[in-house]
This record gives sequence, C-alpha cells and structure tokens, in this order.
Amino acid sequence: MSERETEPADPTLESLRRRLTEFAAARSWEPFHTPKNLAAALTVEAGELLEIFQWLTPEQAAAVMSEPDLAYRVRDEVADVLAYLLQFCTAVGVDPLTALAAKIERNELRFPAPGAGKRPGAGAGG
Amino acid sequence: MSERETEPADPTLESLRRRLTEFAAARSWEPFHTPKNLAAALTVEAGELLEIFQWLTPEQAAAVMSEPDLAYRVRDEVADVLAYLLQFCTAVGVDPLTALAAKIERNELRFPAPGAGKRPGAGAGG
Amino acid sequence: MSERETEPADPTLESLRRRLTEFAAARSWEPFHTPKNLAAALTVEAGELLEIFQWLTPEQAAAVMSEPDLAYRVRDEVADVLAYLLQFCTAVGVDPLTALAAKIERNELRFPAPGAGKRPGAGAGG
Amino acid sequence: MSERETEPADPTLESLRRRLTEFAAARSWEPFHTPKNLAAALTVEAGELLEIFQWLTPEQAAAVMSEPDLAYRVRDEVADVLAYLLQFCTAVGVDPLTALAAKIERNELRFPAPGAGKRPGAGAGG
Repeated sequence: MSERETEPADPTLESLRRRLTEFAAARSWEPFHTPKNLAAALTVEAGELLEIFQWLTPEQAAAVMSEPDLAYRVRDEVADVLAYLLQFCTAVGVDPLTALAAKIERNELRFPAPGAGKRPGAGAGG
Repeated sequence: MSERETEPADPTLESLRRRLTEFAAARSWEPFHTPKNLAAALTVEAGELLEIFQWLTPEQAAAVMSEPDLAYRVRDEVADVLAYLLQFCTAVGVDPLTALAAKIERNELRFPAPGAGKRPGAGAGG
Repeated sequence: MSERETEPADPTLESLRRRLTEFAAARSWEPFHTPKNLAAALTVEAGELLEIFQWLTPEQAAAVMSEPDLAYRVRDEVADVLAYLLQFCTAVGVDPLTALAAKIERNELRFPAPGAGKRPGAGAGG
Repeated sequence: MSERETEPADPTLESLRRRLTEFAAARSWEPFHTPKNLAAALTVEAGELLEIFQWLTPEQAAAVMSEPDLAYRVRDEVADVLAYLLQFCTAVGVDPLTALAAKIERNELRFPAPGAGKRPGAGAGG
C-alpha cells in the first residue's frame, strides 16, 4: 500500500499534521525540528510567498492564479508555510485551531463590528 | 445569539476560515485584504513568532511553553500566522489542505524515506 | 567625556559598526550575537519595517514621512535593520560595502541597461 | 569608460546608494521602487539570508564562511539586504547613518552599560 493510499480523500489539518510528523521521523529530521528552527523556516517560507507578489501591481497580484506558473508557486509556498506552522505547533504542543478560535474571540471584543450592538445575532461571526 | 455560540466546540480549518471572512466583511476590511497585503502581513506575523525565539538558547526555546507569558505570545502569534494564511487562501482561491497534501506527495518522491522500499505497507513516512 | 562626544559629526558605516561592537561588548551580549541569531533578528526587524506599510495604499505609503509618528517608526526600524546587518557582518567577517559593490558589478552584467552599448562613457547605469 | 571604472576603490555607503539609484533609473525600475515594495523586498532578502542558517547547528553556523559556496551566498544576501535598505532609504528620504547614530544614542540611555557610571569616559561607545 503506497503512502498516497493511506491519505483520506479529504485531508484534515490534524491528519496532515500527523503525516508531517511521520515524514520527519522516517527521515530522522526531528533533531533539526526545534521550535526556533521551525519558526525561522516558517518566516523564510512566508518571505518566499511574499516574493511572488513584491513587484506586482494590485491588478497583477489579483490575477496571479490565472498564470499557471505563478499559481503553482503560490500553492507550493502556501503548503510550505502551513507545513512549518504545523510542525512548529507539534514541537511546542499548541493546537493551531484552538489558538485561532481563541484569537478570533479576542478580536471580536477588540474590534466590535459596526452595528453589532444594534442588530443582535447579525454580527461579524453571527 | 452571540458569535461565540455559533462556533462548534471543535472548530475545523474551514469553519475558522469562513469565520475570518465574515469577521473582515462585517468590518469592511476586504479592500485591504489583497493577496499582496495578506502575504506581507503573514510574513510580518511569522517574524513576530520568530522574535520570541531569536535570543533564546536551544534549552530556553524548548521550555518556552512553561513560561505563561511566552506561551501566551506563542499561541497568539500562531493564531495570527494561521489567520493571515487562511485569509490569503481565501483571497487567491487556494485550498490550503489540498495544497499541503499535494506538497507532501511531492516531498515523498523527492526525499525517499530510508528503507521505505523494504517495508511495504508501513504507510506515510513509516 | 560622553559617548556622544566620541562620535564624529558625520558617522561612517565603519565607525557605526565599531560602535555597535563596543556597545554589545560592554553589555556582554556577544554570546547572543551568533550569525544565526543575528540573521533571525535582521529578518524580524525587516518585518517590523514592512508592518508600517502593510495596509497602506500606495498614496498613503508615499506620504509616510509626513506623519511624524510614522516617520519616527520608519527611521527607528531602518536603524534596527542596519544595526543587525552590521552586527551580522561583524560576526561572519564580511565587509558589507565590498559585498554590495561586487553585487552591483554582477547585476550590471546580468541586467544590461537599455542602450548601454550605444552610449559608451555614460557612467553607472548609463 | 566602463561603470566599473567610475567606482572608487573604497566605496562609501553614499556612493553605493547613488549607484543603485542610477542603476534603477537606467532600467526604468523606479515605478516599482515604492517604499512598500522595497520594504517587502528587504524582508524577503533578509529571509533568504536566514535560510542559509535555518537548519545549521551553532557550530556549523560559526563555520559558514569556511565553505566557499555558503560564503558566496552569505555575501550575496548581505549585498541584497543592504541594496534594498539603501533603495528604501532613497524612496523615503531617510539617511541610514544618521538614523542608526540616533538609535545608538537612544539605546545607550535605554541599556546603560554595567559600570558606565563608575568609569566616566570608559562607557560602551567610549
């Protein structure tokens, strides 16, 4: 059975996180996957995603996915950023979905949606 | 009904992605959420995560989650990175889970696991 | 005699580089100033400079120095980026001016200026 | 007369800054060289410098300049970071040396050197 077949048709963040952990373990890469190294690698990959856009006009940037080469690079860098973010989360024991849900809660208090008070139930996340 | 109550106990990446889209729409932030701006913001937030670790020794970095203040900052920056990554994906129409699954496939071909050929059926990275 | 008085009216890159080295030595910061840590700090500070601009329109970005608070932040982040770049160069023994002069030479070959062949003697970029 | 011959044997930061301005002008690159784009490019290049170090142990990082290929990459990325920093400074009208001198002054007040008060004239920058 190939690695491909073990992956469900609809991967979840958690199934991909586990797969990345197994991938690194099979290659004995764990010693390199310290929180500090992974935070550095995450920043490097985010920079590579930004590099695609750095000289583009807003119009060119909005059309980036209609250029097959650029679209491939965008997907590739999105994958790298997410991979290092998940591996970082594994290294420090943080659940990224819980962390993000908590942050959204805090942001809803910090940046109240206009009219949220007047229209109960019709707010930002409602 | 508050925003809080509409969020399931176990958020998924997709439910959080939608919630972020609604959050931005309720505050009329979409004009700022261009792919280029979001790629810049993602890089900035990744840098803020790295900042926590930049002067730490490997030992200090490994213990970062046992310091409540640092642990809070780590979770907060993880949330920010994931938030901007999801908003970027919304802006360009990329599914981050599909992109990451495809990248893992490519990496399994590019970096064969030692002994992978000898132990069929051992699964991803196994 | 204060530190201020020892600095010439027109500081050079080299005088500032030495001053940063003495500053770090006087505070026993050298153990933290490894090439890797300084490269990370440089990236973090570059991100902080980018943060000032991330949501600005081109018009707002062009006018950033007319806002005293933003102008102060820009100068402050430029200083931080340059400081970490110089400290990095000290740590690895690279002369940044020589490195840049060599890079410009390479770029002049790589990206010939339009009409450069037709107008000999027109100087750098001509 | 070639571009090479117009550069003095010992380039200064200011002579290189001017040369970069002429280089961009000769290629009609100024429209791309907005403060925002240049801050993004600076961050991308800083990330490329960090990339060289991201998986290295402290020992490997300390020896990076003894590997000719890595040493070349380090000098090349230092040059790119400095080039974009100078072009950014041109775009916003900031003198990087003055900005750094002012920052060092502020840091000397913010982080007093141990014993600086006891040994007048022997302080951090003294």
